[in-house]
Amino acid sequence: MSLREEALHIHRINQGKLESKSKIPVRNAKDLSLAYSPGVAEPCKAIYDDVNKVYEYTMKGNMVAVVSDGTAVLGLGNIGPEAAMPVMEGKAVLFKSFAGVDAFPICLNTTDVDKIVETVKLLEPTFGGINLEDIAAPNCFEVEERLKKETNIPVFHDDQHGTAIVTAAGLVNALKLVNKSMSEIKVVANGAGAAGIAIIKLLYRYGVRNITMCDSKGAIYEGRPYGMNPVKDEVATYTNRDKIDGQLADVIEGADVFIGVSVEGALTQEMIKTMNSDPIIFAMANPVPEIMPEEAKAAGAKVIGTGRSDFPNQVNNVLAFPGIFRGALDVRATHINEKMKMAAVEAIASLISEEELHADYVIPAPFDARIAPAVAAAVAKTAMETGVARMKVNPEEVAEKTRRLAIIE
Amino acid sequence: MSLREEALHIHRINQGKLESKSKIPVRNAKDLSLAYSPGVAEPCKAIYDDVNKVYEYTMKGNMVAVVSDGTAVLGLGNIGPEAAMPVMEGKAVLFKSFAGVDAFPICLNTTDVDKIVETVKLLEPTFGGINLEDIAAPNCFEVEERLKKETNIPVFHDDQHGTAIVTAAGLVNALKLVNKSMSEIKVVANGAGAAGIAIIKLLYRYGVRNITMCDSKGAIYEGRPYGMNPVKDEVATYTNRDKIDGQLADVIEGADVFIGVSVEGALTQEMIKTMNSDPIIFAMANPVPEIMPEEAKAAGAKVIGTGRSDFPNQVNNVLAFPGIFRGALDVRATHINEKMKMAAVEAIASLISEEELHADYVIPAPFDARIAPAVAAAVAKTAMETGVARMKVNPEEVAEKTRRLAIIE
Repeated sequence: MSLREEALHIHRINQGKLESKSKIPVRNAKDLSLAYSPGVAEPCKAIYDDVNKVYEYTMKGNMVAVVSDGTAVLGLGNIGPEAAMPVMEGKAVLFKSFAGVDAFPICLNTTDVDKIVETVKLLEPTFGGINLEDIAAPNCFEVEERLKKETNIPVFHDDQHGTAIVTAAGLVNALKLVNKSMSEIKVVANGAGAAGIAIIKLLYRYGVRNITMCDSKGAIYEGRPYGMNPVKDEVATYTNRDKIDGQLADVIEGADVFIGVSVEGALTQEMIKTMNSDPIIFAMANPVPEIMPEEAKAAGAKVIGTGRSDFPNQVNNVLAFPGIFRGALDVRATHINEKMKMAAVEAIASLISEEELHADYVIPAPFDARIAPAVAAAVAKTAMETGVARMKVNPEEVAEKTRRLAIIE
Repeated sequence: MSLREEALHIHRINQGKLESKSKIPVRNAKDLSLAYSPGVAEPCKAIYDDVNKVYEYTMKGNMVAVVSDGTAVLGLGNIGPEAAMPVMEGKAVLFKSFAGVDAFPICLNTTDVDKIVETVKLLEPTFGGINLEDIAAPNCFEVEERLKKETNIPVFHDDQHGTAIVTAAGLVNALKLVNKSMSEIKVVANGAGAAGIAIIKLLYRYGVRNITMCDSKGAIYEGRPYGMNPVKDEVATYTNRDKIDGQLADVIEGADVFIGVSVEGALTQEMIKTMNSDPIIFAMANPVPEIMPEEAKAAGAKVIGTGRSDFPNQVNNVLAFPGIFRGALDVRATHINEKMKMAAVEAIASLISEEELHADYVIPAPFDARIAPAVAAAVAKTAMETGVARMKVNPEEVAEKTRRLAIIE
């Protein structure tokens, strides 16, 4: 069977990938009296008296909604909420497998920002966190910003921040290899979608000051008279300060780092040859990267990362989101703030020792079982330090719990 | 440990009762490529091409939302969506345990009918059915009616129809014992909430024509100048046609059947003594019935059912909803119609043979493993016969599947 056939087969024979499961047996009248009437009235009353007890007595504290409107699914685009279900179920499976986080797909039959926001807010009693997924830009930005303000549980748009965190971790390590610092490098990003913008925002937080972002029309700059929107306007306030008007081929000259979240073939060997010494390339277009790793290397690239599992340095969000939510849930965080994201970056990057570090190993592999525990502990610790935790925990215990709950090999 | 303490304990040590679980392992890169990227694109594309395939390739076809606004939870009343979570999780556990139906609690942070309806409609891509739960009357009627019209998946308000179905099953059998027929009996119902109204509606379908319903102010009749609402106005169009104005004690005289969904102590021995020969009493107030069984018997009651597990003839919704949704899901029913409810009644009632039938055994016990398979098969069959099934199945196979998936003793 081909991968395609096998994928269809396993989805069909299992009728999807996710099921609900009881944590306690209900096999007889005694069990029923505890799990349901009359015993269930006791936790109900306890929560009615103190609503925070919902974290103690219900699934909420370990349950994340994977929310999508199906408008930007994989490379398939706007395929709708039903067709998005396999991805959201899959995401829920990864939450559970990598970090013991219960997750549930919520595929919404609307693409209206107000309705998405309203719906998720109404679902807040049920969930301990919200993972936004595959919602097209620019709606995704507004949905996330509003939900962060208008709910009291962590909200995280994985397509933005998951990708940004793993890319940043790869860059932290790649820069060690080439002896450059964040503050001195020139970064050119191609693709102004959700992921691209989140990446450059996070790199800016890391001290990168020389950033130019290109969209399909070329370099974005303040006041560009075409193809702008509020999000790009904001990008233009802290990137390309010389307001250079040009195509990728023009602005990439002298760059230290290329960040591609665009399309197959967007980066050429000729462009790489115009970059600064030891170019670092993250070519993350899926399924075919902006340039194939062997071509990039032949053109002089020092470090190459892609989104693919069959090349080294895979930028895979699964390195980030399971541990991030594990840590955020375990301290009952109200938010996932920038410091927590940076803690995740450091946790991922530091798993590769200086001795192990080399051009083909700047990002750990997805099934490295150390990742989620390290990320969870770092995120929990940082949440407590930055005042968004509603509960104190020992980060070592968070790591230990993550190790215990993970069911990867 | 008391039941109270034990109930709190099991909810706390498990952090609630429900978890998400992967149906397939994701332990290595191969698994990941099938469950998630890139393999997952195949079922996505298949569903995009034919949206009905969502039933084949995702969890939707076996997943029911247990939706509540927390306004009428157990006997606790309006305790809010967080405090309602233990009940909704418990309900989800029962769905799974009794009939292998995956279910998920959706506790909504609103009591506004429009918002509840809108939210559930937006969730339709994710769920194969909607079980409404513990939503106060009269909102529950409007929510259910609108959702039945405005969605394409089965919607069932269990507090209404679950109770009605099990009560009707008990009455079908009780009438055999006393040799009376539906068309000749006089029924008095006390309590005009969701359950009471659903019960008399279902009995009307069974041919009962002499019904009087009382609320806390007395008998409801057409044109009563106080305490009416649109729902009671409708009740008055087919009950108490002589427009008798009186209290329960007045109208119960000569009744064959008392249906209590009201409050402790509402029915007295004196009232029973005024009823017709062989009175049948369903005293379902919780936790303390309208009259205790021994008192009712002493006053001459022939058959007594309550809501309690410690007396015979327990009217427990768990006899109905797991099998009803199992059957409805397996034929991809668009609705749960009246005929399907009546099929469930017959399936439950007929599990007790004429030889076994006696006053203390007109309703099977909740953990009778024959119930859900019988109900599921009957509901699936009737769905196909009444044109609401989108898929043909063999009812015997539905029963067999239900037996296989149930995890009760």
